[in-house]
Amino acid sequence: MSSLKEECGIFGIFDNKDAATLTALGLHALQHRGQEGCGIVTFDGKNFYSEKRLGLVGDNFTKDNVLKNLPGNAAIGHNRYSTSGNNLIKNVQPFFADLHVGGVSIAHNGNLCNARSLRKELVKNGSIFQTTSDTEAIVQLIAKSKRPRIIDKIIESIFKIKGGYALTILAENKLIGIRDPFGIRPLVIGKLNNSYILASETCALDIIGAKLVREVENGEVVVISDKGLESLKPFPKMKQRPCIFEYIYFSRPDSIINNVSVYEYRKKLGAELAKETHINSDLIIPVPDSGVPAAIGYAESVGKNIELGIIRNHYVGRTFIEPTQQIRSLGVKLKHNINKTLIKNKSLILIDDSLVRGTTSIKIIKMLYEAGAKEVHVRISSPPIKFPDYYGIDTPDQNDLLASKFDLDGIRKYINATSIKFLSIDGLYKAMGYQNRNSMYPQFTDHCFTGDYPIEPTDANNKDFTKNEMSLMSTNR
Amino acid sequence: MSSLKEECGIFGIFDNKDAATLTALGLHALQHRGQEGCGIVTFDGKNFYSEKRLGLVGDNFTKDNVLKNLPGNAAIGHNRYSTSGNNLIKNVQPFFADLHVGGVSIAHNGNLCNARSLRKELVKNGSIFQTTSDTEAIVQLIAKSKRPRIIDKIIESIFKIKGGYALTILAENKLIGIRDPFGIRPLVIGKLNNSYILASETCALDIIGAKLVREVENGEVVVISDKGLESLKPFPKMKQRPCIFEYIYFSRPDSIINNVSVYEYRKKLGAELAKETHINSDLIIPVPDSGVPAAIGYAESVGKNIELGIIRNHYVGRTFIEPTQQIRSLGVKLKHNINKTLIKNKSLILIDDSLVRGTTSIKIIKMLYEAGAKEVHVRISSPPIKFPDYYGIDTPDQNDLLASKFDLDGIRKYINATSIKFLSIDGLYKAMGYQNRNSMYPQFTDHCFTGDYPIEPTDANNKDFTKNEMSLMSTNR
Amino acid sequence: MSSLKEECGIFGIFDNKDAATLTALGLHALQHRGQEGCGIVTFDGKNFYSEKRLGLVGDNFTKDNVLKNLPGNAAIGHNRYSTSGNNLIKNVQPFFADLHVGGVSIAHNGNLCNARSLRKELVKNGSIFQTTSDTEAIVQLIAKSKRPRIIDKIIESIFKIKGGYALTILAENKLIGIRDPFGIRPLVIGKLNNSYILASETCALDIIGAKLVREVENGEVVVISDKGLESLKPFPKMKQRPCIFEYIYFSRPDSIINNVSVYEYRKKLGAELAKETHINSDLIIPVPDSGVPAAIGYAESVGKNIELGIIRNHYVGRTFIEPTQQIRSLGVKLKHNINKTLIKNKSLILIDDSLVRGTTSIKIIKMLYEAGAKEVHVRISSPPIKFPDYYGIDTPDQNDLLASKFDLDGIRKYINATSIKFLSIDGLYKAMGYQNRNSMYPQFTDHCFTGDYPIEPTDANNKDFTKNEMSLMSTNR
Amino acid sequence: MSSLKEECGIFGIFDNKDAATLTALGLHALQHRGQEGCGIVTFDGKNFYSEKRLGLVGDNFTKDNVLKNLPGNAAIGHNRYSTSGNNLIKNVQPFFADLHVGGVSIAHNGNLCNARSLRKELVKNGSIFQTTSDTEAIVQLIAKSKRPRIIDKIIESIFKIKGGYALTILAENKLIGIRDPFGIRPLVIGKLNNSYILASETCALDIIGAKLVREVENGEVVVISDKGLESLKPFPKMKQRPCIFEYIYFSRPDSIINNVSVYEYRKKLGAELAKETHINSDLIIPVPDSGVPAAIGYAESVGKNIELGIIRNHYVGRTFIEPTQQIRSLGVKLKHNINKTLIKNKSLILIDDSLVRGTTSIKIIKMLYEAGAKEVHVRISSPPIKFPDYYGIDTPDQNDLLASKFDLDGIRKYINATSIKFLSIDGLYKAMGYQNRNSMYPQFTDHCFTGDYPIEPTDANNKDFTKNEMSLMSTNR
Repeated sequence: MSSLKEECGIFGIFDNKDAATLTALGLHALQHRGQEGCGIVTFDGKNFYSEKRLGLVGDNFTKDNVLKNLPGNAAIGHNRYSTSGNNLIKNVQPFFADLHVGGVSIAHNGNLCNARSLRKELVKNGSIFQTTSDTEAIVQLIAKSKRPRIIDKIIESIFKIKGGYALTILAENKLIGIRDPFGIRPLVIGKLNNSYILASETCALDIIGAKLVREVENGEVVVISDKGLESLKPFPKMKQRPCIFEYIYFSRPDSIINNVSVYEYRKKLGAELAKETHINSDLIIPVPDSGVPAAIGYAESVGKNIELGIIRNHYVGRTFIEPTQQIRSLGVKLKHNINKTLIKNKSLILIDDSLVRGTTSIKIIKMLYEAGAKEVHVRISSPPIKFPDYYGIDTPDQNDLLASKFDLDGIRKYINATSIKFLSIDGLYKAMGYQNRNSMYPQFTDHCFTGDYPIEPTDANNKDFTKNEMSLMSTNR
Repeated sequence: MSSLKEECGIFGIFDNKDAATLTALGLHALQHRGQEGCGIVTFDGKNFYSEKRLGLVGDNFTKDNVLKNLPGNAAIGHNRYSTSGNNLIKNVQPFFADLHVGGVSIAHNGNLCNARSLRKELVKNGSIFQTTSDTEAIVQLIAKSKRPRIIDKIIESIFKIKGGYALTILAENKLIGIRDPFGIRPLVIGKLNNSYILASETCALDIIGAKLVREVENGEVVVISDKGLESLKPFPKMKQRPCIFEYIYFSRPDSIINNVSVYEYRKKLGAELAKETHINSDLIIPVPDSGVPAAIGYAESVGKNIELGIIRNHYVGRTFIEPTQQIRSLGVKLKHNINKTLIKNKSLILIDDSLVRGTTSIKIIKMLYEAGAKEVHVRISSPPIKFPDYYGIDTPDQNDLLASKFDLDGIRKYINATSIKFLSIDGLYKAMGYQNRNSMYPQFTDHCFTGDYPIEPTDANNKDFTKNEMSLMSTNR
Repeated sequence: MSSLKEECGIFGIFDNKDAATLTALGLHALQHRGQEGCGIVTFDGKNFYSEKRLGLVGDNFTKDNVLKNLPGNAAIGHNRYSTSGNNLIKNVQPFFADLHVGGVSIAHNGNLCNARSLRKELVKNGSIFQTTSDTEAIVQLIAKSKRPRIIDKIIESIFKIKGGYALTILAENKLIGIRDPFGIRPLVIGKLNNSYILASETCALDIIGAKLVREVENGEVVVISDKGLESLKPFPKMKQRPCIFEYIYFSRPDSIINNVSVYEYRKKLGAELAKETHINSDLIIPVPDSGVPAAIGYAESVGKNIELGIIRNHYVGRTFIEPTQQIRSLGVKLKHNINKTLIKNKSLILIDDSLVRGTTSIKIIKMLYEAGAKEVHVRISSPPIKFPDYYGIDTPDQNDLLASKFDLDGIRKYINATSIKFLSIDGLYKAMGYQNRNSMYPQFTDHCFTGDYPIEPTDANNKDFTKNEMSLMSTNR
Repeated sequence: MSSLKEECGIFGIFDNKDAATLTALGLHALQHRGQEGCGIVTFDGKNFYSEKRLGLVGDNFTKDNVLKNLPGNAAIGHNRYSTSGNNLIKNVQPFFADLHVGGVSIAHNGNLCNARSLRKELVKNGSIFQTTSDTEAIVQLIAKSKRPRIIDKIIESIFKIKGGYALTILAENKLIGIRDPFGIRPLVIGKLNNSYILASETCALDIIGAKLVREVENGEVVVISDKGLESLKPFPKMKQRPCIFEYIYFSRPDSIINNVSVYEYRKKLGAELAKETHINSDLIIPVPDSGVPAAIGYAESVGKNIELGIIRNHYVGRTFIEPTQQIRSLGVKLKHNINKTLIKNKSLILIDDSLVRGTTSIKIIKMLYEAGAKEVHVRISSPPIKFPDYYGIDTPDQNDLLASKFDLDGIRKYINATSIKFLSIDGLYKAMGYQNRNSMYPQFTDHCFTGDYPIEPTDANNKDFTKNEMSLMSTNR
C-alpha cells in the first residue's frame, strides 16, 4: 500500500452537448488520482462557466445541483490531490484568466521544478498571484505573453517551465492538450462519436464508452478545434521517458498505458518477484487492494492461490474519530481487520506493491502476529524507494523514506517481519519485456529507485525558498 | 452481488469510560449492515444522552463534534438501513422513552411480523407513535406494562412480539441483550477487560480488540449490570434456527458465527458449487467484492486462480449524476469497469454469491461481451431466491425476484448468459458440514429458498393494512 | 424595554387553497411573539404535512423550499419563544398525534399550571412524552380520551388542564380554536373571503387583508368546518379577565384587542403617566422602540415633542461577538447608541413601558451620563412588576424582579437615575376608561403588579417537582 | 424611504491587541452601509489573515468561529453592498495582493469612474483580474507600480483613478487612509487610548468608546505607523465637496459629519420643509424609520406631534416568501402595516426623506387610503432626484427615477397622493446654515438633484463598454 500520492487527474472534451456531464463522469473514473477537490470549466461559445468543490466528484457534481450551471459543448475538468494545509477551494483547478484576447482555463497534472523562481520574477513585475499552486505560474506566463494568438502565448509559456506536466487547456473554441518533453505525466486522446477527448488514463474513456485514439506524445501539443485535431511539436525531438510509478501503482488496473495493460504488468511484477524471492509458506496474502494483482501473478507462478487474510473496511469516513491515547492502545482496527481463523498458526507471504514510510506495514504485521501468524515474509513488487520525486508525486521527505534510512535488514527489523525482499530494478524492466534497464537512456523515469533525475529540481535545490512563501492565510466560505 | 439489504447493526457496552467512542468504533465495523443513519445513546448514572445522524458513522461521530455530548459508562448504538421514503432522522435508533421507573433506550435489528396489529391496538388505547418503525411498538409495550421492574416490563413485552429480532436495551444501570426464540438475527457477547459488550457480529469486537465470550442464545435475555452478566430464559426451550443469509452475504467475511468462519464457509460454498457445476473455461472471474471468497474456493477446488476481470470503483458517491437518457445509452460504467485486455476472446466463469433481481448481472454480462468475452457461464454460490423475507431483510416483492418469475433457462435468457447454475439447497448444508437439510427441523432459517417460514408473517397476511398508514409527512431540520 | 417574553403566537386557516402561505404570512406578522422556532401543519383531505424550523419565519418558510411541502386547504402554525437550553427542533409546535380516529395537530400559546402533575400521571399509565413542552400533556390527554368524537376528546381534555391558553387545533376536516375560561391569552376570529382564520392578534389578519370578525370569547370553543363556524361553551359562564400585558407590551401597536387600539392605549398610559409624575426637563426621550407610543402620549399631554436621544442598531445578529473582559470594559454599545449632540448638558425624561430586571436601563442611563446628560428622570408607563407569571409569560424568578427586591429609592439607586416614577395601578385602569381597578372582580389579569392570581399555580407550588425532569438530552440533526 | 444604496462601510485600526474584534464591532455599527458581505484582514507582524463572509457582521464574526483566525494588532474591514447578480464571496473586500515588497490589503468605499478603461489597459499588459469589482483596478495598479516603497506605489496609483473614494489600506506595519480630492466619500480618524482608528462614520467610534480626532481631509493620505500619524497631501489643494446624501440619508442619525449632527440636520430639513410647504391636516406621519427625524423637526416647527401611523415589521427575513399572483393581489403587507384606528377619516401629512422610484410610496399611500385616510399630503425633506450617481451610490437608471420621468403633478398622480411637495435646493443649504447653494463652488456634491457632476463619469460615457464584461460565471463553495 503506497503512501505516495499522485497530484491530480485531468479530462477535456470538445464538441459534445453533454460536455460537463461527460467530464464529471471522466473525473469520477479518475477519482483515485485526487480526492480533495474537483472542478469543471465549460465554454458555451460566449461565456466560460466554472464550478469547483472540495470533496469527491460523485458527492458534488449531480445533475440538479451543479451540472446545470455548466452549459456549453466544450469542457475541461480536474481532480485535485492537495498536500495538507492548503486544502482551499481557491487552489482547486481548473484555473481561469480573462485575457484581452479572451478567456483561457487550465487544468494541470504534474509539478513544475522552477515554479517558485518563475513566481518570484512575475510578482516583481506586477503579477498578483491568487493561489499557492505552481500551476498559476503557467497562467500568469500566458497572460504576460505578448504573442498575439493564444496558442503562441501558450507555447511561449511552456518553454519557460520545467518539470513533469500534462495540461488540458480550454480557450475560446479550442481544447488544447500538452505533455512535457519527457512525457513523464500521462495523457491520452479518445473519441466519442465525433467528440475528441483528453484524459489522464484510458479508464476515463471506458466509463463513457469512448474509444482510445492514441497517447499524446512526449513534448506534443494537440489543438482540437472545429477543424479537427492538429498536432504541434514545438520542442526538439527526444525519446519518451514516462513515469514508472503510473504502472506500478497510480493508474487503475483496468487502464492501458502505451499498449500495456496495467493489471497484466502488475501480475508480471508479481511473477518476477516470485522468480527472484520465493520461499515456501502456507498462504499468499495480498495487502488489499494495492497488492492483489501482484499477489495473483505471484501465486499463479508458484501454482498456488491467494487468500483474503486481510479484510478492508470500505466505509472509512473522512473525518473519523481520533481515538484517545487509551483507546489507541487497544490497537483500533479502523481500516483493516485480520481473517483470524485463516491466519492462525500459518506462515504467510505478504505481498504489496511498494513500501514508502512503512507505517501501514507495521500495523498490519502486528495485527497478523496478534491473530496467530507464525511467520510473515514481506514481498514488495517494486524496488526500494530511496529518493523523493519533484514531478508531480507527493513523496515524503527523503529522511522519511524507509529505504533511504535503513538497509534491508534494518527495514525488516523496523516493520518486524520474518523476512523482506524487494523486486530488483532489472525485474521491473523485465516485467515490461525489456532485457534490463538501459542505463544510458533509461526507458522510464525511475529516479525514486535510482536517483537518476531527468530534470534538475531547481526550486528544491535553491536554499533561498522557504516552505511557506504566501503571506495570506484565508478562509472564504 | 446481492440486492438484499440487512436491516441494521447493533452494539452495546457497559462499564467503560470510553463507552460512546467504543460504540462508534463498533458501529463503524458494522457499517455494512446499514448506511442510512446511526445513533448512540449513553447513560451517565443520572441522565441519558442521545445523538443521531443520517449517513455514515465515520462521517458523523467524531471526537470534537458529537462524542463529547455522550458522557457515561454505558452505551448502545445502532446502524440503520432504511427502506426508501422514510429516511427521516426520527426513525433513526436507538429509541428512548422516559418511563416513571426511569429512562429506557432500545436498538433493534430485525423485523416484527405483528408490528402493525400491535400498533393499531396500542393507538386505540391512547399511545402516540412518533415514528413509522416497527421497533416503536416494543417501546410502547414496555411503557404500557404494569409490571413494577423494568426487566419484567421488557419480558412481558417480548412475549407479545413475533418475528426476528436482536435487541440491545439500555436502562438505568443495566444493559440488556435479547435474541428472538429462533435466534434468527445474530447477537454476540464480548468482553474488553472488565466491560461487557453486545454486538451483531464479531468484527465489531475485533475493531476494539475485545474478546468473543459467546453468542447470545436463541430466546435468551442477558442482563448486564454491576453484578455481572445474568442469563434469563423466559421462553420455552427450542432449537435455534439462525438466518442462513448472515453466512451467505450479510456478515463480514472476517466475522465468526457460531464457531464458523464466514470467509471459510463462503469458500466452501464455492467449492461445493464447483463440485456441482464446473465446466472448462479460460478464466474464473468473481463479481467484486461479493463473489470473491466463493470464487477463491471454486478456483482452488479446480486447481486454478481467480482473475480480476471486473474492476470496481470505490468512490461511488451517494448522490451521483443521474445521466440523461442519451448519456445512459452510452453504457455508463459508474460502478464497474471491465479489464478488457484480460477478457478479450476468453470464456469466463462468472461467480457471485446470490442473484435477486438480476439488474447488476445484466449490466455486467453486457459489459463483458462488449469487452470481447466469448462465453459467460454464471455460477451462483447459493440457491435461487424465490420467497420474500419478513424477519429483517429487505427483499423485493416476490414478483421482482428473478427466480420466482422464471425457470433456470428463463433466468439465463433474461441476463443473457451462456449458461447459469445455482448451488443446490443440500450444497448449502453440506458446505456447513451437514449431510443435508433436515426438513423436519431445518438447521437454519432458509425460507427465501424453500418457502418454509418458521413464524407466520401476520401483518403481511392481513389485507386490512395498507402500505402507508402514517398520516403525517414531516421534515424537521 | 421589557425583558418579559411572550410564549408564542398562533394562527389557523380553513378552506383556502393558499393555506400554508397565508399561515406563513400570519406567523410573520406575529413574529414579535416568538423568534426561536416556527412550524406549520397542513391537511389536504387525506394526509397531514408538517414543517418546522429553528429561527424566523421569513428566513425559513420560502416558496421554493418549504411551502411546496405543505399542500392542503387547512393549516395551523406556531411561533415559538423558547426558554434557554431547550431550543430543540422537537419542541417546536404544532405537535401532531396519529389517533385511531385520525390525526390531530395542536398549536398552543400560554402555559399550563398543572402540566407536570398531569404528565406524571400520564407517564405512570404508559404515555411516552417526546418533548419537554407543557403542550404535550394536552395532546396525550386527547389521545387517552375514550370519547368517540375528536371534539369530545378535546373538550374532555381541556377540563383537566389549568392555566392560560389559546389553542388552534387541526383535525381531519376541522379547525378548532379554544380560549381558556378567563380569556387570559388572546385569540381572534377573522375572515378572508370565505375562509375562516384564527390568530393571536389582529395584525396577522391585516397582513393578508383579512377582516376581523370578533374575538374568541373566554372559555369558548369554536369549531370551523365545511358547515361554517359553530360555537361551543363547555365551561360555566364567567367574566373575562384578559392579560393586561398584551396591551402594555406584547401585542403589536397596530393590533386591536377587544375594540381597543393598542397604540392608543399606550399613548393614554403615557398621558396618565404625565398626569401623575410630570416634572420640567429639557427633553422627552423614549427608549426605542418599546417606549415610543407612551412617550408620544406623554409629550402630547405636556405640549412638547419626543426626541430621538437613543438610536437603536437594527442589525443585531443572533450569535454576536462575545467581547473579552477587556473589550467589555470599553462599554461596547452593540444595541444602542446615544445621540450625543442632542443630549449634552440636558435634563431628560426617559420613558419606557416597563422595568423588569433593570439590566438595559442601567446600561442606557450610564451611556446617557457619559454622553453628557445632566439629569435622567426615568418614567415607566406601567406599575412595578413584583410577582412572576405562570400563564404564558416568561418572567424571571421573583428575586430577579427589581421591584420585588427594592423600594422605589432602591430601584433609583440601582439604575442610577436622578428620579424614577411608575404609573399607578389605577392609572393603568383609567387609561383603559375605567374609574379604577375593580378589586372584587378585576377587569384584567394583572397579578404581576398585584399578586392577585386568578388560577392557582399548582406545579410551581409543588416542591416535588425539580426543574429538569426529562432524563434525555438529545440533538438530532 | 430611499431606495438609494450606499456602496460600503470601511474601518481600520492600528496597534491594538483586539484589532479584529474591534474591527468587527466597528463594521457592526456601519452595517447600514452594506449588508451583503463583510470581511476583515489582519496583520500580525509576519503574516496577513483574511476572513470574508456573505451576510451580516453580527451573524458571522463571532468569537469562537472566526475572530480567532484573525490574530494581529492591525486590521482593516469592509461591509459590502452588492448590486444584484454579483453577490459572490470573491467580490467581498478587503482585497489582498502579495507584492514582492510585501503584502497589501485594501478596503474601498466609493466608485471609480474610469475603472473599466483602467482594467482594459491592465489586462492588455498581462494583469489577471479575479473579481468584477472596480476596486481591483487599484490593487493591480499598485502591483504594477515600479516605485520602490509601498506608499509611493499607492500614491502613483491614486493619481490614475477618478471618482469618489475612501480607502483603508493595510500594508506591513502601516495603516493608510485616503479620501478622494473632493472628499466625496467620508472617512474619519479616531483614537482609542493609543490606537488610531479610521472609519466611515463616527458611530463606528462610539460603539467601541473611541474618541473622534478629526476627519480625513479631501485629497489627504494619512499614514499610521509606529511613528504615529503622518499626513500627506499629494494632490493640488482644492475645496472639499462632500456628498450631501450622507447627511440626507446614508449616515446613521447619531453620526457627526464635519461637526454637524446628522439627526439635527435632518430635523432642520423637516423644519425648512414645514416653512416651505405646510398646510393644515390632522396628523403628521413619518415613513418609518427614514422619515422620523425630519417629521419630528417638521412637527416641532408647526407646534404639533408626530404620530406612528405606519408600523414597521422588524423581522423581514432575507429570503422571504414570494407570494403567488393571487396572494399578491390580497395586498400583502410584509414590511409595513397601518395603524388603522388612528388613521381613519383623517387627513395626513406623510413625511419621508427622499423619493427615488416611488415603489414604496405607492404601496404605503394605497394602504393608508384602504385604512380610511381622507387625504394624504406627501412631503419630502429633500429635492427631486433627477440624475444618477457614479461615485459610490447605487442609483437606478435615470429613466427609473420618478422625478426624471414626471413633473410634480405627474409624480402626484403616479403615487396617488392628494398633494406632493419637495424641499427646494436652497432649503437643503439653508438647513446647513448657508444662505443658499453657491452655484460657482457648490459646498456639496449634489449632482443627483442638480446634474452638476464634479468628475466626468468616463466609463458611463464610453459606449464601448457593455454591462457584463467578465466572461467567467463562477460559483465556489
